[in-house]
Amino acid sequence: MRFRTLSFSTRSLTPSKTLLPLVLRRRLVSALSAAPSPSPMAATEESLRRALAEKQTAVDAQSEAVRALKARPSVSKDEIDAAVEVLKALKVEQGAAAKRLQSAVSSNSDGSSKEAFRQAVANTLERRLFYIPSFKIYRGVAGLYDYGPPGCAVKSNVLAFWRQHFVLEENMLEVDCPCVTPEIVLKASGHVDKFTDLMVKDEKTGTCYRADHLLKDYCKGKLEKDLTLSPDKAAEFKHVISVLDDLSSEELGAKLKEYDIRSPDTGNHISDPYPFNLMFQTSIGPSGMLPGYMRPETAQGIFVNFKDLYYYNGNMLPFAAAQIGQAFRNEISPRQGLLRVREFTLAEIEHFVDPEDKSHPKFVDVANLEFLMFPREEQLSGKSAKSMILGEAVSEGTINNETLGYFIGRVYLFLTSLGIDKDRLRFRQHLPNEMAHYAADCWDAEIECSYGWIECVGIADRSAYDLRAHSEKSGVPLVAHEKFSEPREVEKLVITPSKRELGLAFKGNQRIVVEALEAMSEKEALGMKEALDDKGEVDFQVCTLGKSVRIKKSMVSISMERKKEHQRVFTPSVIEPSFGIGRIIYCLFEHSFYIRQRKSEDEQLNVFRFPPLVAPIKCTVFPLIKSQQFDEGAKLISKSLTAARVSHKLDVTGTSIGKRYARTDELGVPFAITVDSTTSVTIRERDSKEQIRVSIEEVASVMKEVTDGQRTWFDMLWKYPTHVTTHADEL
Amino acid sequence: MRFRTLSFSTRSLTPSKTLLPLVLRRRLVSALSAAPSPSPMAATEESLRRALAEKQTAVDAQSEAVRALKARPSVSKDEIDAAVEVLKALKVEQGAAAKRLQSAVSSNSDGSSKEAFRQAVANTLERRLFYIPSFKIYRGVAGLYDYGPPGCAVKSNVLAFWRQHFVLEENMLEVDCPCVTPEIVLKASGHVDKFTDLMVKDEKTGTCYRADHLLKDYCKGKLEKDLTLSPDKAAEFKHVISVLDDLSSEELGAKLKEYDIRSPDTGNHISDPYPFNLMFQTSIGPSGMLPGYMRPETAQGIFVNFKDLYYYNGNMLPFAAAQIGQAFRNEISPRQGLLRVREFTLAEIEHFVDPEDKSHPKFVDVANLEFLMFPREEQLSGKSAKSMILGEAVSEGTINNETLGYFIGRVYLFLTSLGIDKDRLRFRQHLPNEMAHYAADCWDAEIECSYGWIECVGIADRSAYDLRAHSEKSGVPLVAHEKFSEPREVEKLVITPSKRELGLAFKGNQRIVVEALEAMSEKEALGMKEALDDKGEVDFQVCTLGKSVRIKKSMVSISMERKKEHQRVFTPSVIEPSFGIGRIIYCLFEHSFYIRQRKSEDEQLNVFRFPPLVAPIKCTVFPLIKSQQFDEGAKLISKSLTAARVSHKLDVTGTSIGKRYARTDELGVPFAITVDSTTSVTIRERDSKEQIRVSIEEVASVMKEVTDGQRTWFDMLWKYPTHVTTHADEL
Repeated sequence: MRFRTLSFSTRSLTPSKTLLPLVLRRRLVSALSAAPSPSPMAATEESLRRALAEKQTAVDAQSEAVRALKARPSVSKDEIDAAVEVLKALKVEQGAAAKRLQSAVSSNSDGSSKEAFRQAVANTLERRLFYIPSFKIYRGVAGLYDYGPPGCAVKSNVLAFWRQHFVLEENMLEVDCPCVTPEIVLKASGHVDKFTDLMVKDEKTGTCYRADHLLKDYCKGKLEKDLTLSPDKAAEFKHVISVLDDLSSEELGAKLKEYDIRSPDTGNHISDPYPFNLMFQTSIGPSGMLPGYMRPETAQGIFVNFKDLYYYNGNMLPFAAAQIGQAFRNEISPRQGLLRVREFTLAEIEHFVDPEDKSHPKFVDVANLEFLMFPREEQLSGKSAKSMILGEAVSEGTINNETLGYFIGRVYLFLTSLGIDKDRLRFRQHLPNEMAHYAADCWDAEIECSYGWIECVGIADRSAYDLRAHSEKSGVPLVAHEKFSEPREVEKLVITPSKRELGLAFKGNQRIVVEALEAMSEKEALGMKEALDDKGEVDFQVCTLGKSVRIKKSMVSISMERKKEHQRVFTPSVIEPSFGIGRIIYCLFEHSFYIRQRKSEDEQLNVFRFPPLVAPIKCTVFPLIKSQQFDEGAKLISKSLTAARVSHKLDVTGTSIGKRYARTDELGVPFAITVDSTTSVTIRERDSKEQIRVSIEEVASVMKEVTDGQRTWFDMLWKYPTHVTTHADEL
Repeated sequence: MRFRTLSFSTRSLTPSKTLLPLVLRRRLVSALSAAPSPSPMAATEESLRRALAEKQTAVDAQSEAVRALKARPSVSKDEIDAAVEVLKALKVEQGAAAKRLQSAVSSNSDGSSKEAFRQAVANTLERRLFYIPSFKIYRGVAGLYDYGPPGCAVKSNVLAFWRQHFVLEENMLEVDCPCVTPEIVLKASGHVDKFTDLMVKDEKTGTCYRADHLLKDYCKGKLEKDLTLSPDKAAEFKHVISVLDDLSSEELGAKLKEYDIRSPDTGNHISDPYPFNLMFQTSIGPSGMLPGYMRPETAQGIFVNFKDLYYYNGNMLPFAAAQIGQAFRNEISPRQGLLRVREFTLAEIEHFVDPEDKSHPKFVDVANLEFLMFPREEQLSGKSAKSMILGEAVSEGTINNETLGYFIGRVYLFLTSLGIDKDRLRFRQHLPNEMAHYAADCWDAEIECSYGWIECVGIADRSAYDLRAHSEKSGVPLVAHEKFSEPREVEKLVITPSKRELGLAFKGNQRIVVEALEAMSEKEALGMKEALDDKGEVDFQVCTLGKSVRIKKSMVSISMERKKEHQRVFTPSVIEPSFGIGRIIYCLFEHSFYIRQRKSEDEQLNVFRFPPLVAPIKCTVFPLIKSQQFDEGAKLISKSLTAARVSHKLDVTGTSIGKRYARTDELGVPFAITVDSTTSVTIRERDSKEQIRVSIEEVASVMKEVTDGQRTWFDMLWKYPTHVTTHADEL
């Protein structure tokens, strides 16, 4: 998975270097959200822009005609009036075209403003303490947020379900590694050298900005606000936005210069772009000699433990390890609220598999799922995401292998169980330029919210890259073994340098020459053998000596030998689903939010339609009226709910039932229990407002069953009498 | 709660400063473990030391006698032989006395070696991946550990139970704040200035050591290894160890010099002690202008949110907020394995309460609990911890108030439910010199393990200190309000400076003088009023100006006025239970570990007797013999266990039942399900090895009930037929 948009490896390398191995893991938590993908909107927008330009041309022409008419000496007033009328009519048409374009470039397809919706959600979230800007009394820190009580409860429910859905269901090996990480680990993974964003500085104030943000903001601003933009220019800005993440530092700098982009806060000139490492750096221990970083992802903790985990799993593949934990990225200028933050919770799975067998025994369980996929081909040909059956996507080769497909299916089930709207969820395949060269295939679960399509889960087949990187750096082989049932005969290259002869010839350099000979590839070695058989000697380039040496036939014996092998030793491939928990939760907030019109008054009520699984509080308990009997009943029920471990809120404040409903709907509490008799209660469901009557003894077990997923509300509607008279409900 | 041993505030301040307010929170995660408390052992050891010294004297005297005898010209061989025999006998006695002393100073009271036990536990924990030294393939980093799969599962069970036992049960407001914290917050809390340990450096190599560790190691080494130590000298070393944490930098330096303590690795001279701040420092954002730290505790995140949380709670007291999260301490030289680490999980509760009413409505629920307490008085008079009834400890005033007592009782229930042995758990009250001056009372839950008594939970009444500190620094009042049912008449001091007069007199300093006058306490103001009424003018010390000014009667009016007040505004007190989760888990490992002798062979089997609540895996499923029918039955059961959310392990490897039991006992798996028929199974309990027979359909629900605490194994023994013939059990 990738954190830096299409960006990162390509952007931080100059074009001439892009053929080098891309050492850095490309992962979650990018502003991919903001990277526009071709959409059906685009066509409409372009035709609207063209229509507006045509109207503008017509208005200009008619204005000119009116002016010319007026300048002529002998023209009747009627003639001029008629021409002016035409001009007016054209202007009205132009105005309407401008309005249509404006609404197309800045609004949701349903016409209601994205901004207004986002603001309504944000207001409710902040007012009810779902989240709080961290350290608010000290004016906060950009990109750091607290989860307040209901937000924290939602998060802990999401994580508990993640553990159940993935770790428990698949018997994964969960681990828990520290955030503080020594430099050598992140050097091996590539983060120390390559985990950067390009930054520019205000030349006078020194304020820092992300270079790509400035360029994107400029282009977006032009597209949204300058309605007179020619279709060609509009196409150019759109192109810039779409290739933004592929631009090298030099290309980005050139564009910033070309458009004369300045510091947005001061209008000052800005510096050329330069890379800024996004890891929080620190120092481990008192000596100052051991540099460390706060981990930018949790996966490395799993890779470095591969050997032990493989052993723990009985030296068998496949198996998966998982980790939930904090990750840290020192963003240059965090934006988009909860979507791009400096500290966040990741949940990552590393599924280790034999590269020669990526089938999955449980793939049949998900093969019939059908949902929105956005394969590479559709993206490149300007089409939109389409509904596909998972089994077919794998069998047709759209998805590289069964294991990758299995996880895509499981992620789909996970997200929709939480309450993510399946029509605003798609799985987008990475384009070739987005993927690291070693990756076999990569799909992002993208969720649509008011900020656009947000990358929330990445599911990547990263082949053997990560284990190899740590094997090389640490010198500890991170490999798996396949024991053959019967030994197999193989041809093997055997290189035997004669240490004596080499010692006589090269003295102190003997060891280096020996090592270089042993390190030859099969092709090199066979070439040398041929030359030696032919001519008796050959020149051999020894990189570590920086020169060529002459090798004679007596100095080395090279042969192909047939050997019996009892096992295959290989580096496993890793398939990695990586979840940005905070992003999923934010999208869930947007997908769950709706506004209910109150009938009796001209008032709007905010509701979160969280499923019971996710809801921060499962039910509220109210006495219908202030009375000792009802209060006691309510307390009794509260006790039994606590014993059944159902989180709930007891409200004996005595405010009106309508107000209490409004208060708890806004927290997404799915059920309200009104104590209105000494023997039974009314339970009301939040969205349907349907009510059932249940005896006081049964309340806790009904709530338990319906909130932990054993039963549904629908089951309960069948089982218990419904209650039709609304006593003081808000409607 | 305190992290730095008795140490910290007193140690980092010179004696002359100890009367200043101690601004730093004293909290969990110290080596309190190592701070010896008076114990019955002490007396025995001293008498053994004295006995050994007497034997030594006797041996010396007899040696001298023998020498003198031999030097005399006319002594018979018999006479000499007799004297030598006496000497030999004395030497044997001396040897025995030395042995007794040696075993008293280095072993458990039961005589088995603590070290050997600890090593056995550690071997099992590491081999079965309960924990792994982090970044092991890169040779690790001191003080950083990973939880491997079973350790991670135990941790997540402990945290889930913590949430249930505290957050759900008490309706606490759980929050989740970032680890990255800007400097200003930790400046207000005092950590930036005072969160230090004293360090010394090897003068040649620069290696760093904790100054108190070197001194303690020296004293302990002398006490344990130098058996010829005089009782006086031994008492001196013991005294040094006991006051270690109260020593100032200078005193500590003087002791290191006096004993000529050198660098333990090189023998080089060491520097004088100097303070090292234990927070990991970093920088937030790209500018380098916003210093930050990784939080050393989670509590500050709650304090800075007090205002919002109070509002969320309907502006009512008392209420509690809670947080589980990572905390970081850059230890100078981490030791004691999992007990002193550089990154760890804290679970903290801040219970906000009216300082005038610290009663607790649910105190009755815990008042009858009886357990080991170690009040201040017992510690100071050299007695040991004693069993007390909680209700009496509060009513007698030993524990300051009901709320504090309530939490002590809840902590006791929490720890013992996890499996902590109640006989190795005590609640130790802080001595006056350990507590911050503002704290009303403080108790540590200490658990005894092979390292001694370890501070695992701190329960402190911290009064209003923390909220006041952040109010002052941020300028945001963090206060609560009590509305009076009827307005109350109060006398209030009114100070009205005349700005005009003061401006004429003090020009540019006017504002400073006005503020100083307004800030006067009631006593100061009334004193000034009297003086002004008397003499017409008075000298007034203005700290912020650094000098005295002369105040005339015309410059200020001071009076006591009767006013009606409708509410009381006050800073709440906070009662803080703070849990070192890693320490609790480590102690739990030790308390749960035992070795079972295998009857049939001469082999020892390791067992963790985790209660089902804590066990990393709840049950294993084995087919009795390799057969398709049994394998299918086992898979079916595994599916139903997954559906019931019971973590389990399916083992179809076909190794002997005895070996499989041994393997899972070592992971602390409480139940083993053997599939030995197509209709029913045998369930075996780990510790008693009792077995029952249950039908295949019922297995999952039996396991669910017995592992989530609805039923006990004992209930099941009654309900289901027991199975007496052991089929291939290990015995």
